[in-house]
Amino acid sequence: MPRIKKRRSQKSGLPPGALVHIGEVRTESPTLVLTSFGPDGIVERELAGAAGLEGIDDSAPVRWLNVYGVHDSELMAAIGRRFALHPLVLEDILNTDQRPKLDAYDDYLFIVGRIYDVARQRDDLATDQISLVVGDGFLLTFQERRSGTFEPVRQRLRAEKSPLRRLGADYLAYALLDAMVDAYFSIIERLGDKCEALEEEILGRPKRNVLQKAHQLKRELSLLRRTIWPMREVIGSLQRSPSPLFRDETRLYLRDIYDHAVHLLEQLEDLRDLLTGLLDIYLNSVSNRVNLEVRTLTLLTTVFMPAALVAGIFGMNFRSMPWLESPDGFWSALALMGGVAVALFAVFWSRRLFR
Amino acid sequence: MPRIKKRRSQKSGLPPGALVHIGEVRTESPTLVLTSFGPDGIVERELAGAAGLEGIDDSAPVRWLNVYGVHDSELMAAIGRRFALHPLVLEDILNTDQRPKLDAYDDYLFIVGRIYDVARQRDDLATDQISLVVGDGFLLTFQERRSGTFEPVRQRLRAEKSPLRRLGADYLAYALLDAMVDAYFSIIERLGDKCEALEEEILGRPKRNVLQKAHQLKRELSLLRRTIWPMREVIGSLQRSPSPLFRDETRLYLRDIYDHAVHLLEQLEDLRDLLTGLLDIYLNSVSNRVNLEVRTLTLLTTVFMPAALVAGIFGMNFRSMPWLESPDGFWSALALMGGVAVALFAVFWSRRLFR
Amino acid sequence: MPRIKKRRSQKSGLPPGALVHIGEVRTESPTLVLTSFGPDGIVERELAGAAGLEGIDDSAPVRWLNVYGVHDSELMAAIGRRFALHPLVLEDILNTDQRPKLDAYDDYLFIVGRIYDVARQRDDLATDQISLVVGDGFLLTFQERRSGTFEPVRQRLRAEKSPLRRLGADYLAYALLDAMVDAYFSIIERLGDKCEALEEEILGRPKRNVLQKAHQLKRELSLLRRTIWPMREVIGSLQRSPSPLFRDETRLYLRDIYDHAVHLLEQLEDLRDLLTGLLDIYLNSVSNRVNLEVRTLTLLTTVFMPAALVAGIFGMNFRSMPWLESPDGFWSALALMGGVAVALFAVFWSRRLFR
Amino acid sequence: MPRIKKRRSQKSGLPPGALVHIGEVRTESPTLVLTSFGPDGIVERELAGAAGLEGIDDSAPVRWLNVYGVHDSELMAAIGRRFALHPLVLEDILNTDQRPKLDAYDDYLFIVGRIYDVARQRDDLATDQISLVVGDGFLLTFQERRSGTFEPVRQRLRAEKSPLRRLGADYLAYALLDAMVDAYFSIIERLGDKCEALEEEILGRPKRNVLQKAHQLKRELSLLRRTIWPMREVIGSLQRSPSPLFRDETRLYLRDIYDHAVHLLEQLEDLRDLLTGLLDIYLNSVSNRVNLEVRTLTLLTTVFMPAALVAGIFGMNFRSMPWLESPDGFWSALALMGGVAVALFAVFWSRRLFR
Amino acid sequence: MPRIKKRRSQKSGLPPGALVHIGEVRTESPTLVLTSFGPDGIVERELAGAAGLEGIDDSAPVRWLNVYGVHDSELMAAIGRRFALHPLVLEDILNTDQRPKLDAYDDYLFIVGRIYDVARQRDDLATDQISLVVGDGFLLTFQERRSGTFEPVRQRLRAEKSPLRRLGADYLAYALLDAMVDAYFSIIERLGDKCEALEEEILGRPKRNVLQKAHQLKRELSLLRRTIWPMREVIGSLQRSPSPLFRDETRLYLRDIYDHAVHLLEQLEDLRDLLTGLLDIYLNSVSNRVNLEVRTLTLLTTVFMPAALVAGIFGMNFRSMPWLESPDGFWSALALMGGVAVALFAVFWSRRLFR
Repeated sequence: MPRIKKRRSQKSGLPPGALVHIGEVRTESPTLVLTSFGPDGIVERELAGAAGLEGIDDSAPVRWLNVYGVHDSELMAAIGRRFALHPLVLEDILNTDQRPKLDAYDDYLFIVGRIYDVARQRDDLATDQISLVVGDGFLLTFQERRSGTFEPVRQRLRAEKSPLRRLGADYLAYALLDAMVDAYFSIIERLGDKCEALEEEILGRPKRNVLQKAHQLKRELSLLRRTIWPMREVIGSLQRSPSPLFRDETRLYLRDIYDHAVHLLEQLEDLRDLLTGLLDIYLNSVSNRVNLEVRTLTLLTTVFMPAALVAGIFGMNFRSMPWLESPDGFWSALALMGGVAVALFAVFWSRRLFR
Repeated sequence: MPRIKKRRSQKSGLPPGALVHIGEVRTESPTLVLTSFGPDGIVERELAGAAGLEGIDDSAPVRWLNVYGVHDSELMAAIGRRFALHPLVLEDILNTDQRPKLDAYDDYLFIVGRIYDVARQRDDLATDQISLVVGDGFLLTFQERRSGTFEPVRQRLRAEKSPLRRLGADYLAYALLDAMVDAYFSIIERLGDKCEALEEEILGRPKRNVLQKAHQLKRELSLLRRTIWPMREVIGSLQRSPSPLFRDETRLYLRDIYDHAVHLLEQLEDLRDLLTGLLDIYLNSVSNRVNLEVRTLTLLTTVFMPAALVAGIFGMNFRSMPWLESPDGFWSALALMGGVAVALFAVFWSRRLFR
Repeated sequence: MPRIKKRRSQKSGLPPGALVHIGEVRTESPTLVLTSFGPDGIVERELAGAAGLEGIDDSAPVRWLNVYGVHDSELMAAIGRRFALHPLVLEDILNTDQRPKLDAYDDYLFIVGRIYDVARQRDDLATDQISLVVGDGFLLTFQERRSGTFEPVRQRLRAEKSPLRRLGADYLAYALLDAMVDAYFSIIERLGDKCEALEEEILGRPKRNVLQKAHQLKRELSLLRRTIWPMREVIGSLQRSPSPLFRDETRLYLRDIYDHAVHLLEQLEDLRDLLTGLLDIYLNSVSNRVNLEVRTLTLLTTVFMPAALVAGIFGMNFRSMPWLESPDGFWSALALMGGVAVALFAVFWSRRLFR
Repeated sequence: MPRIKKRRSQKSGLPPGALVHIGEVRTESPTLVLTSFGPDGIVERELAGAAGLEGIDDSAPVRWLNVYGVHDSELMAAIGRRFALHPLVLEDILNTDQRPKLDAYDDYLFIVGRIYDVARQRDDLATDQISLVVGDGFLLTFQERRSGTFEPVRQRLRAEKSPLRRLGADYLAYALLDAMVDAYFSIIERLGDKCEALEEEILGRPKRNVLQKAHQLKRELSLLRRTIWPMREVIGSLQRSPSPLFRDETRLYLRDIYDHAVHLLEQLEDLRDLLTGLLDIYLNSVSNRVNLEVRTLTLLTTVFMPAALVAGIFGMNFRSMPWLESPDGFWSALALMGGVAVALFAVFWSRRLFR
Repeated sequence: MPRIKKRRSQKSGLPPGALVHIGEVRTESPTLVLTSFGPDGIVERELAGAAGLEGIDDSAPVRWLNVYGVHDSELMAAIGRRFALHPLVLEDILNTDQRPKLDAYDDYLFIVGRIYDVARQRDDLATDQISLVVGDGFLLTFQERRSGTFEPVRQRLRAEKSPLRRLGADYLAYALLDAMVDAYFSIIERLGDKCEALEEEILGRPKRNVLQKAHQLKRELSLLRRTIWPMREVIGSLQRSPSPLFRDETRLYLRDIYDHAVHLLEQLEDLRDLLTGLLDIYLNSVSNRVNLEVRTLTLLTTVFMPAALVAGIFGMNFRSMPWLESPDGFWSALALMGGVAVALFAVFWSRRLFR
């Protein structure tokens, strides 16, 4: 079950802008990949740590520096110096439990996003922070570990005559955000599958932990909702922001991701409605079951208790009792037992009890 | 039960604007019908695929191209080129799970609507996307399959001296939107009928799946609500939009559809209130039934258990016991049994138990 | 129980502005009453249908035309031509299931209100639409049938030196709206009486249909709320509207009706709180009753089952058993029965069971 | 329990501005007290009805006229004429069921407030309307009856060199509003005491009417909330209103009362949370009790029913039965009874039943 | 359990601005610490009460006066005179139950914050008010007692070449607010621990007071929420406020604390979701338990009641009864008992009762 992370309080008392990594260290050593491209061509190469940063050639129309692993504060500080990033930006990149947000600085936009990794986790929604810095002609992306989220975009960049190469850093940033939002569709599909499995269990023979499962699903849904909601806000702000870093034609595309995010939120709401209905049906089935047991008990009592009384009566040791000597006494007694039971049953049935 | 469609994730990783049809293919081959009209006359003809697009005569005051079937991406691309549509518009027309929305482009407005087909489905709310592109003198409409939604408007167009012919593409778009919104009234009436049937069942003898039915109805209501709500927003935005494509006198009519959409939403809310009340009554009737069974059980126990004890006592094998030898002993014992039962019953009655 | 009216779908497919009456026909033939007045005098006369409309003298400072019965579309069309009303206004007057609303046209304001008739209905909240068209020097009012709602205003108009005569059509419109809002106070009082009756029943001996009654009341409350809420909005918009048809001094009075509408909404909310509390108390009393029955059952079992066992033991047919031969055996057995019951009772009492 | 007052409908049909007193008449005859003051001194005197109004000397810097008792419409009309009040203001003063509100007129501000009287009522939240008219140099206050609400302010006025005397009518109005808001703190403390008493009862031995008490408390809380909420709005509007009648330095003080009102609302919300939790705990304790009874019943049945069967078996009259002749037969049977009970108990215990 | 403090009503009737301490006196005698610093150095010294205030040297770039203990109204009045504070500011500093807020005065900003002390309290959320006055070159901070909240900032100030010394009073205020917000992370972690302990208890063997614990936790969460929410608002207002006292570069940092506050609120919401789910699971486990008991009871009755009837029948004293004389009669009777039980059990099992 997703828990509140207990790491923030480590940082209490440190000055703001202090570069302390908060979060799990998820990769051995950071990797820096620089992709420089323009309409004419594309060059991809891996940089050798902080030293390699100096060699970045600023003449290419777009430079995209992708960093896997953000726990090395020295390296991050070097990147910060190279691209003139504000200390708070660096701090937010290192503290990997940020909410998705958009912060506008004078020379660049700082975007924090968040992805969930399907392939890796089985039963758990673990999450990685992805930070983007969009500047004039450059784009920095920071991920907690190697992931395939940006791979499709990279493929399209490599394709000969890709339209992506003609467009600037803003369109590349859009393409990456689009890839991040698209990844949520499969997460939600997986949750949808879980909901259906739960539905089948509830309509069949629910196990005792079915409520826990349902509540865990509910919490996963609200966790996702709390991530997608601010991502939608981020995209909406980007679309409306007066920054010249995003061109009008790119903003048109942002409207498209915005619609996707709204779509995601509606699917989440739909799943939540489904879950709420399922819980209701489950709780009612429990109460129906008690109902059935009580009815059976009452029925048994109706049939057997009066008969037992009749038997008890003819088992009394009085000297003079009717029927005892009669040859048919025994059968009469049995008939009496059956008769009383039938009569009671008829009375209750007529009062709509046993149906 | 309406499910979340699992198709969006097919598209993950494709570039935006990629023309991939998302949704069920609902018609064999697309049909294009061009209706050119003006105050002086009207010409309707079916176009022969992409080739026929070239022959569209731009001199008619209003050209309305209606397309049934949107899964042929080549044809869609041809239409896009002919009418200079943005790739995102084409993408949204092909992805048939859009929310209703209004996107303003420089030369045209793009409207996505949604209808539910009553005639076809029995127990299910299936839904089709209808896309409209309203330009200066032309109107494109895209439907997933042949449907009768626009038929009344077409009839009115064909009528001699129809006022529709005198008014422009914007009024035609209004008339089509009006037809789409009007179609919801019968959907809601059908849901209203289902609610009444459910009410009768609940107040009579509810079957075990009554809760599932109720929750399915609830989900259908919230599905409709989630469709009508953004359609209302679309119409409201159209009404307020500064676009010169909609004339002021047409906006006046849009206010009217807006009112209808609000009316629809209120009817949905009313049905939801009704359902909530019904669920409450149903759950209470279940609990009342348990109550009745328990009361019967208690009543039986009150009458028979003490009597059985009396019988047991006189069945003991002690040598010296009172009454045993007396000729009236048996009847006295029976009287005792009855007496104890009556006394207990009286005590419980006085404490308001069995009433 | 108020149902969703199934009449809107009759109109699907008709052009907007088509004059089709939607709703029950509630009066034999429409009646037109023209009241012309000014500071100097007042003339009231009944017009003879459409023909009479031509004879309206436009020189009187204020002309008030009141129409009872709106189902005659020819007559309505004639009125529309005489006062230059927009087709949509006429359509909304004929479709008597409009929400309260305010539509501003160039030369007049169109107001739709709604009243509930107390006198007529017993158990049902039936409702009539009242439409007002406020123009420069004229006021049109349309009612579904004869009602006394406007009678007090008419009386005040007839009074010699009535200040009403000096003020214009806007003040008259205000006075009529005030009368409509005031009428809601008695409706709410009636619902308040019903709530109190329900409270008494619930705290006394609730019948089985008490839940249905409560839910019907709840739905009536939310129906009223959904009518008064938009009426409040209409009055608020009138107050803020820039139209020169309403003078500033009349707007001051509109603020007063606005306060009344807010007051009505608060009373409705208060009643809903009361109902919610009552339902809670009722459901709890049902569960308390089950509790009591189960406790009685347990108590009976505690007393009688151990005693029956003792009796059974001494009824066994073993040859050698203690006490059987003893003269006090019987009484000892009875004492044993009593003793076991008392001991068990004491144990349970000490564990807070039977209290 | 606070009920909806049934008096508004008396007024239906009367023209607006008609001076009809609505509410209980709470004092024998109205009392008018005029307090004229300025930095130099203060004069307090009681006016002799309407006649005394003429003698008010307009030269004092601030004239404060306080009226106890508002049911004498003639007197109210005289006051209205003397201070040029709008008919709607007078009407609102007489109708003592107004919501708190602020109405700005050209020459004065009209404020309606509401107090609850602690001293007088025992079990009921009765409420009085207090109306203020703040003009240039004069302040009118209208109360339904004599109350001590304004006494502290009056004391401070009387004090030699009171800063209050130097400040104008606006500051006096502020001081009175402050006194009214402060009075709510003790009301809420009393409700807090009631909540604590309820908590003790619920955690101890709740009586049967505990739910009714809780719901009454809840309704009192929401009644208070519905009074304090608009009072907060009134103060907020006063603070922001562009009227020159309130000086900027007084507005600074209004911010302070605004904070108090927010504080009050939070305390109400806190109490409501507490009540909701208490209701939950109470309902659960009821259900726990049923649980306990059922468990006892099951335990009794487990122990005694099998034993009774054994006794019954050995009470059968078969000629040849084992053990009957054996001298230890009786004790073996008893051992069997005990054994079966222990075995069943062990089975149920191992399945976590009786713990 | 946090209670509503009953102290406000002590102040009813006092003039606004009256310096009366409201709250617990939490420290023996107030301590004043003055820290004067600038880029060149830092001087810390303790002032000797009101007298020491005169000796404050206004030439240092930033003077920070920190006051522990606010109950000495004379001292507070002296501070007010020295720094020209408005009486309402002083009043709010003394009344230690303020909501967090920001009040802008001409020459300074007045900020009220609130902290919770972890170290001290065990089971209770006690809270201290911290007030800040940010002026041009000076900062006043008022705390109810000595606490370590500001210690880390003080340490950073003392450090040689601390960047804090170069920045003004606004940045210092930011640093203190940051320390206050950071302290909430550990509070929320502690509540998270409590929630987990509760979860373990509920999924294991819940004690009877588990509901009370859960509701207390819920109330603590909503108490925190009601404190953090306005603190977030305070920081947001500071960020947007047009006051020249906060420089643009400091505002950038405020955005950071704002994000932290949002983060805190989301963690609270997450915990509340968790608690709600836990309560649901707990209540369901109670009802499941009843279900199990009732099932056991029904099972026992099914097995033993028919058998007891058979025993009763063969215990009747009829002269002629079948089987009695037969040597296998006894065993046949036992077989009959078993057979009936098995048959009933089979019937119930086939109707899905005992599984």
